[in-house]
Amino acid sequence: MVEGVTEAGFSRARLKAFSDGVIAVIITIMVLELKAPESPQVSELLKLAPSFAIYFVSFVFVAIYWINHHDLISQARRVSAAVIWANNALLLCLSLIPFATAYVAITHLAPFPTMVYGALQFSCGSAFALTFSTIARQRRDEPEFALAAQARQRKNWAGLAAYALAVVIAAYSPTSALLLFVAVAVAYVVPSLFADASPRGRRQ
Amino acid sequence: MVEGVTEAGFSRARLKAFSDGVIAVIITIMVLELKAPESPQVSELLKLAPSFAIYFVSFVFVAIYWINHHDLISQARRVSAAVIWANNALLLCLSLIPFATAYVAITHLAPFPTMVYGALQFSCGSAFALTFSTIARQRRDEPEFALAAQARQRKNWAGLAAYALAVVIAAYSPTSALLLFVAVAVAYVVPSLFADASPRGRRQ
Amino acid sequence: MVEGVTEAGFSRARLKAFSDGVIAVIITIMVLELKAPESPQVSELLKLAPSFAIYFVSFVFVAIYWINHHDLISQARRVSAAVIWANNALLLCLSLIPFATAYVAITHLAPFPTMVYGALQFSCGSAFALTFSTIARQRRDEPEFALAAQARQRKNWAGLAAYALAVVIAAYSPTSALLLFVAVAVAYVVPSLFADASPRGRRQ
Amino acid sequence: MVEGVTEAGFSRARLKAFSDGVIAVIITIMVLELKAPESPQVSELLKLAPSFAIYFVSFVFVAIYWINHHDLISQARRVSAAVIWANNALLLCLSLIPFATAYVAITHLAPFPTMVYGALQFSCGSAFALTFSTIARQRRDEPEFALAAQARQRKNWAGLAAYALAVVIAAYSPTSALLLFVAVAVAYVVPSLFADASPRGRRQ
Repeated sequence: MVEGVTEAGFSRARLKAFSDGVIAVIITIMVLELKAPESPQVSELLKLAPSFAIYFVSFVFVAIYWINHHDLISQARRVSAAVIWANNALLLCLSLIPFATAYVAITHLAPFPTMVYGALQFSCGSAFALTFSTIARQRRDEPEFALAAQARQRKNWAGLAAYALAVVIAAYSPTSALLLFVAVAVAYVVPSLFADASPRGRRQ
Repeated sequence: MVEGVTEAGFSRARLKAFSDGVIAVIITIMVLELKAPESPQVSELLKLAPSFAIYFVSFVFVAIYWINHHDLISQARRVSAAVIWANNALLLCLSLIPFATAYVAITHLAPFPTMVYGALQFSCGSAFALTFSTIARQRRDEPEFALAAQARQRKNWAGLAAYALAVVIAAYSPTSALLLFVAVAVAYVVPSLFADASPRGRRQ
Repeated sequence: MVEGVTEAGFSRARLKAFSDGVIAVIITIMVLELKAPESPQVSELLKLAPSFAIYFVSFVFVAIYWINHHDLISQARRVSAAVIWANNALLLCLSLIPFATAYVAITHLAPFPTMVYGALQFSCGSAFALTFSTIARQRRDEPEFALAAQARQRKNWAGLAAYALAVVIAAYSPTSALLLFVAVAVAYVVPSLFADASPRGRRQ
Repeated sequence: MVEGVTEAGFSRARLKAFSDGVIAVIITIMVLELKAPESPQVSELLKLAPSFAIYFVSFVFVAIYWINHHDLISQARRVSAAVIWANNALLLCLSLIPFATAYVAITHLAPFPTMVYGALQFSCGSAFALTFSTIARQRRDEPEFALAAQARQRKNWAGLAAYALAVVIAAYSPTSALLLFVAVAVAYVVPSLFADASPRGRRQ
C-alpha cells in the first residue's frame, strides 16, 4: 500500500548482517571476562588455565553458530516475524554465553556452573532448531528440501541429546562434560567441512 | 557543486547500517552488567533472578526498537540533518539502556531505579516519535502516507502513555511496572507480526 | 599483476564501513564507564550528574565525527596508505574518548582531567585535519575542490584553536571549558544541517 | 542440490565483513582495560604511561592485521572450510590481544607478561601464515601467484622469527622487546605503503 512500508520488509541480508554483528560482539567481548592477573608470576597465569579452556570452548561454539546461522537464514523463503523472533531467541541465548563462560571460569569448572553452561548450550541448540523448523515450514511443499530438512533436524536432535547428557555428566565430572562439549563441536565442524568443500565440485 | 560533496550525502542504507551496529553492540554489552557469582552455589545464581528478568525485558525492548527502526528509516524520503539528529537522540537514549538495566539489577528492582528505567523507556519512545514525525513531515503531501502516519502516531502516543503510567506504578510496585513493560512489548510485537506477514500476500 | 592483489585494493566503502564499526563500538561502550549506583537512593544517582554531562558531550562529539568522517572519506580519490594511516590515527584518538570520559567523570570534572579531555579533543581534531589535508593533496589539481578545501581547513583550524583555548580554560574553570566544548559542537552541527539540507534542491 | 544450500556458500565478502566486525570490536574494547585513575593528580595519570605505550603498540598491531587481512582473504579463490577455520584461529588469537595488553599494562611491563605478549603475537603471526598457506594451496597452479606467495611467506617467516626473538629478549629487557615489536610493525607498514600506492599506476 504505502511505498515506504513495502520497502521496509526485512531482507535475509539485513537479518544476517545484524546477527553477524551481534555474534561478532559476543565472540569478542568474552575476553573482557578474562581478568589479567595483577602479579607477573607464572603461577598466577597458570591459575587461569580453566578460564582459557572454557574461553576456547565458547569461542569455537559461537564460531560454529556463526557459520551455521548463515546457512540457516539463507534457506528462508522470506523473513517473517516468526523467523525474526525465533532468531532473536537464538541471539538472546548466545548473548548469555559470555556470562556462562565467566561463571564457569570464576568458579574453576565447579559442577553446578558447568551444568548451567550445558543448559545454556542446550537452549542455544533449541533456539536454533526452532528457527530451523520455522524456516522449514515455509518450504514444506518442496520435497527435496523436506528430505534434507529431516536429516538436518535429526542432527539437531542428536546435538540436543548430547547437551542434555553433558548437563547430567557435569554434575559428577565437569571435565568430562567439557570434553563432551568439544566432541559435539567437532561433530558439527567436520560435516560442515565436507559441505563447504562440495560447492566447488557442484559449480564446476 | 564539488564532486565529493554530492557523493557524501547520507543514504538511508548508511544510517540504518550505523544504527544497526550501535544497536547490535547495545544489545550485546548489556550482558557485561550481569556479574557471574564467584561462588558455585545454586542459591547465589538464584539471587540473580531479578537481574535476568530485567535483562530479558531490556533485550526484547531493544530488539523491538531494532525491528521498528528499520521500518522507520526506510520511510524517509531523504536523510536530512534533522532525521540524523533525531535518530542520534534515539541512539543516545537506547545507549543508556545497559546502564538503567544494571541499575535496576544491582538494586534488586527497587522502586526509584525502576522509575528511572521507565523514564528512560519513555525517552526512547519520545525520540522514536520525534524521528517518526520528522520523517512524516517530509511526506505530508502524500495522503495515503499521512493517514498511515496518523495511525502510527496514535500507537506511539499510547506507548508513551503506558510508559508514563509504568513510572508512576513503579513508585508503589516495581514488579507490576515490570509486567506493564512486558505488556507494552507484546503490544508492539503482535501487530508487527501481522505487518511482517502481509508483504507475502501483497507481493504475490 | 597478480589477480588477487588488484582486487585487494582498499575501497572507500571498506574504509568507511570499518571506521563506522569502530565508531559504533566507541559510542556505545562509553556507557560501560557509567557505573550504576548500588544504592537505590535518589541522591546517589544525582551524584552521577557530572558523569552524565560528560557522557552527553562525548556522545555528541563522537556523533559529529561519525557524520563528518563519511564526508571526509567520500572525497578521497583513492584510499592510499597515507589516507589509511591518517584515518587510523583519527580512530586511535577517538578510541581514547571513553577513557577520557571516564577520567573526567570519576574525578568529578576536576581541572587536570578536563584539560586532558580537551587535549584529546584537540588530538582528534588534528588527526581529522591531517586526514583531510592528505585527501585534499590528492585533488589539488581541481580548482573548485581546492577552494572548498581551503574554507574547510579554516574551519578545522578554528575548531583546533577553540580546543586549545578550552584546555587553558579548564585549568581555571572546568565547567566553562565544558560549555566551550558544547559551543564548538553546536558550531559543527549547525552548518552541517544546512549542508545536509542542500542536496535535495541540487538533485531535483 | 537443494536451492538454499547453494546460496549458503560463504562468500569472501561475508568472511571479510565478519572479520572486520570482530577486529573493529577488538581494537575498540582494549580501551576498557585502561582504567582511569580515581585521583585527578598528574602523577597518577603519568603512572599509566606504560599502559598507554602497550595500548598504542596493540592498536597499531591490530590495525596492521586489519589491513593485511583484507588482502589475504581477497586472494582466496573460494572460502573453503579450511580457510574459515584458519581464519577463526587468527581471530581467536587476535581476540586475546586485549587480555595480553591488560596483562602487560597491569604488571607495568614485567618480563614474564611481556614474554606472553610476544608469544601471542607469534601465535597471531602463525595463524596468519597458516591462513595464507591454505589460500596459496588453492592457487598453486598459478605460476605468477606462487612466486608472489613465496616472497610473502618469506616475509611471514621473518616476522615470526622477530616475534620469537622478542620473546627471548623480553625475559631480560621488556622495553627492548617493546621496541622490537614496534620495529616489526614498521617493517610491515612501510612495504604496505608502497603496495597500496601501486594500484593507481596499474589502473591508469
